[in-house]
Amino acid sequence: MSEPTERTTVRRLPEKAVMDRSVLDAILDEALVAHLGVTEGDQPFVLPMACARDVDSLLLHGSTGSRLMRTLASGAPVCVSVTHLDGLVYARSAFESSMRYRSATVLGSASEVGADDKLRALEVLTEHLLPGRWAELRAPRAKELAATSVLRVPLDEWSVKVGDGFPDDPDEDLDEPVWARVVPMRVAYDDPVDA
Amino acid sequence: MSEPTERTTVRRLPEKAVMDRSVLDAILDEALVAHLGVTEGDQPFVLPMACARDVDSLLLHGSTGSRLMRTLASGAPVCVSVTHLDGLVYARSAFESSMRYRSATVLGSASEVGADDKLRALEVLTEHLLPGRWAELRAPRAKELAATSVLRVPLDEWSVKVGDGFPDDPDEDLDEPVWARVVPMRVAYDDPVDA
Repeated sequence: MSEPTERTTVRRLPEKAVMDRSVLDAILDEALVAHLGVTEGDQPFVLPMACARDVDSLLLHGSTGSRLMRTLASGAPVCVSVTHLDGLVYARSAFESSMRYRSATVLGSASEVGADDKLRALEVLTEHLLPGRWAELRAPRAKELAATSVLRVPLDEWSVKVGDGFPDDPDEDLDEPVWARVVPMRVAYDDPVDA
Repeated sequence: MSEPTERTTVRRLPEKAVMDRSVLDAILDEALVAHLGVTEGDQPFVLPMACARDVDSLLLHGSTGSRLMRTLASGAPVCVSVTHLDGLVYARSAFESSMRYRSATVLGSASEVGADDKLRALEVLTEHLLPGRWAELRAPRAKELAATSVLRVPLDEWSVKVGDGFPDDPDEDLDEPVWARVVPMRVAYDDPVDA
């Protein structure tokens, strides 16, 4: 369990807030990509980045030549958002129609993974994104390691929202002449294509 | 075509930048959810929100009681990010491994859709998220319209990146004793479940 801070208290649909750390972990562990927010001046930027959880933090990586990576590594405040869409909720009105989703938000700042832990962190990232692949591949070259920056965002301040139900139509809509359903959604993988 | 601004010039992997407006439209039209970034103080916040393109703008909606919606409606700078993951790219090294993706970023500020256009905007949103459903449902009630804020972000300043290729292994890796493949990914819909 985690006590939300003032910034991570869920105000909209608070009944959907989840405070179990295991739910956060499950959401992150299913994610290949997180949307990372960072501010430059007063302009927010949101970027999709591959991610992997490493125990109590989330790992991200990118080019050492990237301005974004340097901004992040400097300790700028960040927000990491991970969302899974699990279904379309067809209610008996447009107003009550919604989606099934699992959404995690992490606030904090990133720090750069040092040289002593970079190889292990890259293994965690690679094994998360391409399970089983690390052992099959040659070791990273020194120039590849030098060109790669790995960042760590601690899982200290976070919130989770889960919408997993059926339409919640008010009584006066239950006689509307329309069906009410959930259409489940998921990510599917097709047959590999050889390069 | 759109000329990128200084803020929307793609600097990392610029060969993946796409400047055709039709590609932006296609990415947005396939999206059910966008990740919206907004700054409060120096803290960025990123939130998943349902979205729908309406010609030259992107529509978002939420509760009129939401602090976020009020911040957005006040014209705060926003960043909207839409990402589709299309595949896992297994290269012959971890360094060259990547993903297939289509990613759109829109910078600007939101404005609230006025009462004269709100019903039409909600129809655009509903028809995008639940095609064909608007005509089946009763009309929104006045209290529902009053509780819903619809925002519009113009598609003026944007960038698109597309990674759709195969592994780009350097010559010295082509003899590595591993296969190189792409595993295509897509969103799948399962059979409806009655409420």
